[in-house]
Amino acid sequence: MTPAGLSLDAPLLLRQIHALGAIGHDAAQGGRTRIALTDADKAGRDQLVRWMRELDLDVRIDRVGNIFGILPAASGDGRPLMVGSHIDTVRNAGALDGCYGVLAGLAVARAYRQAGILPRRAIAVGAFTNEEGVRYQPDMMGSLVHAGGMAAQAALDAIGIDGTRLGDELARIGYAGDMEPGTLVPREYIELHIEQGPLLEAEDRLIGVVENLQGISWQRVTVTGVANHAGTTPTRLRHDAGYAAAACIAYLREQVVGAAPATTLATTGSLRFEPDVINVIPRKATFTVDLRDPDEGRLQAAEQRFADFLVALAAHEGVAIDTERLVRFQPVAFDPGLADRIEAAARRRGLPHMRMTSGAGHDAQMMARIAPSAMIFVPSREGISHNPREHTDDAQLILGAQVLLDVVQDCLAAH
Amino acid sequence: MTPAGLSLDAPLLLRQIHALGAIGHDAAQGGRTRIALTDADKAGRDQLVRWMRELDLDVRIDRVGNIFGILPAASGDGRPLMVGSHIDTVRNAGALDGCYGVLAGLAVARAYRQAGILPRRAIAVGAFTNEEGVRYQPDMMGSLVHAGGMAAQAALDAIGIDGTRLGDELARIGYAGDMEPGTLVPREYIELHIEQGPLLEAEDRLIGVVENLQGISWQRVTVTGVANHAGTTPTRLRHDAGYAAAACIAYLREQVVGAAPATTLATTGSLRFEPDVINVIPRKATFTVDLRDPDEGRLQAAEQRFADFLVALAAHEGVAIDTERLVRFQPVAFDPGLADRIEAAARRRGLPHMRMTSGAGHDAQMMARIAPSAMIFVPSREGISHNPREHTDDAQLILGAQVLLDVVQDCLAAH
Repeated sequence: MTPAGLSLDAPLLLRQIHALGAIGHDAAQGGRTRIALTDADKAGRDQLVRWMRELDLDVRIDRVGNIFGILPAASGDGRPLMVGSHIDTVRNAGALDGCYGVLAGLAVARAYRQAGILPRRAIAVGAFTNEEGVRYQPDMMGSLVHAGGMAAQAALDAIGIDGTRLGDELARIGYAGDMEPGTLVPREYIELHIEQGPLLEAEDRLIGVVENLQGISWQRVTVTGVANHAGTTPTRLRHDAGYAAAACIAYLREQVVGAAPATTLATTGSLRFEPDVINVIPRKATFTVDLRDPDEGRLQAAEQRFADFLVALAAHEGVAIDTERLVRFQPVAFDPGLADRIEAAARRRGLPHMRMTSGAGHDAQMMARIAPSAMIFVPSREGISHNPREHTDDAQLILGAQVLLDVVQDCLAAH
Repeated sequence: MTPAGLSLDAPLLLRQIHALGAIGHDAAQGGRTRIALTDADKAGRDQLVRWMRELDLDVRIDRVGNIFGILPAASGDGRPLMVGSHIDTVRNAGALDGCYGVLAGLAVARAYRQAGILPRRAIAVGAFTNEEGVRYQPDMMGSLVHAGGMAAQAALDAIGIDGTRLGDELARIGYAGDMEPGTLVPREYIELHIEQGPLLEAEDRLIGVVENLQGISWQRVTVTGVANHAGTTPTRLRHDAGYAAAACIAYLREQVVGAAPATTLATTGSLRFEPDVINVIPRKATFTVDLRDPDEGRLQAAEQRFADFLVALAAHEGVAIDTERLVRFQPVAFDPGLADRIEAAARRRGLPHMRMTSGAGHDAQMMARIAPSAMIFVPSREGISHNPREHTDDAQLILGAQVLLDVVQDCLAAH
């Protein structure tokens, strides 16, 4: 039912998702672990490359280990269309994060192969190195290098949390390719991914048309007060680092998020008290602040309101408050034309869909630096990911891949 | 300048404080450690008993190791007056907590000996076993047993955090006495102690007339929410255990304490998040709530307001909140007549003084069960105790001991 009569081999796509998910699987924990450039990652890459070769794709590997399987164009020139994601995982992961987008890319190529036709432009299926950033920092490394945001040599010289050098591990597992990163500049980049959030499920939609990706602001806040006896120190003489931290968290939710458009998110995921004793007023509290918004102006406004609050709080409680910026990414706007094509494809198939923002980071945000890019989301049950309980119904996975195939054909028909 | 011409040997009192503080001293850490019934506690006890014998006091030791040095009465009957405290310490403690009150008691007895007179009633100088409760629970154990609040056998059978049995350790260090606990029921009990809080210093007073001791309510609160991705979970779909905990702490300070008389104190000293990761909404938050008030009705009102808040918060945030009561002591009212005598003594000496509440627990609260009791406080610099930085100026220590001697003579003159 797709244009040009192409059809998706849904059962094979699902089998490949399960087969890839079996590599690095730990029956006791329930998940699989294929952290970048480990033996398990090598086993996953080997499987992916075998599948690419079965489809007679031209497999190319660049110096940082990004893998591309290229379905050639029917005739000569024109920049390729790229679909892709990553196949490395966090520890004890689900089977879908990243892998779904790469394997759906193979399913698109397979649809052409099974129909016996070639696309008007080449289709490259990409699997980027080290998207998760568990072992080597930064995350989204392969796509960042591909997009020119990091030198290949710097990536190769990255030292992991286990003391290893990325370039050495890449060579060890046989994925130090010779192609210069960034050689393949696509005309468009489309990434299909599970949502990793609860919105599609909550809104009862099947397809997320991802039109942008949130800006992220991470800070570590350290409050230094005075430790004192909980029973003998009157409230007016307290310099309570713990109360100050709590007041910040409450303020972020109630005043910053509460007063902002619903797009602004604030989270404190980590908090520690010192000395952390029941009857001692905390001397020190250290906590993180994760602020996100798809709009840079609103993100800055939230940061500013919080900064102003810290100044007033420090004076009021008689504590010192220091902040350290850990991460700051500006929002990424995806290509409106591509988003329109995704929305149109979902509409043609009669699938409930919604425009949305990606709350997590993805390779697509790096690719957006060098090519019109967009993402397609499918629902994540209960919003869970990075966990063996990560789940999307098979039917939802199939519909998402169909939309991807539709959009690819639509793009190729247009250009 | 005291009635009856008795005078305090201030230099000797200070020398004994320093000498006792040298036992168990750790030069590297700066403090001393004489945890109950350890070898270091034995060394402290041995020193105390030698000093009692030097004053020709009748040394009596009960079955739980409480030590009493008794200066006999000039003639026959009448219940003794007791002064005292404890000489066990926390880990890396200051030199004053407890020890000051016991050694000032010796100084009172010494004043009689040096004047060559005997008091109208016997004066017992008590040093109670295991006030700190570091190794064996509960704290204030020796005075609790003495006051009949705990069976001697139960105390002897207490198992320490190191797996030892209290009775065995007591016998090992040679302080398993034969006197039945509670044999000495005094006519009044007076405890001189450092404040362990900042009030006297902040108010620029030298003597605290302690008229009561706060009730204490300790709870552990566990909030269970849902861990989710900080970037993909809209605020309205969050069940954020960390935010809920912060809201509780802010509510306690701003609404419970803020709306109550200044006597109500609330502290959260310990707080943990799980999984404690920057970009994950906390699944679980566990924190402690320490509520104190010298008035039982107000303490109950604070507990109730907090409990009501938890119910509303759990519904609002969609989290489960469980509370566990850890400690609950009702407030202790000290004897008004004794407090008046302390105040009068301070006034006669022209010492700036104030009525106050003890925020910490003391042996006096146990003794108040069986005898009119009160406490005298001297300032603690910056309110610090249980720490090598614990400090009271020598002059302040001397003035406090003089007030104790005055009050003892006043009591003995009256009865």
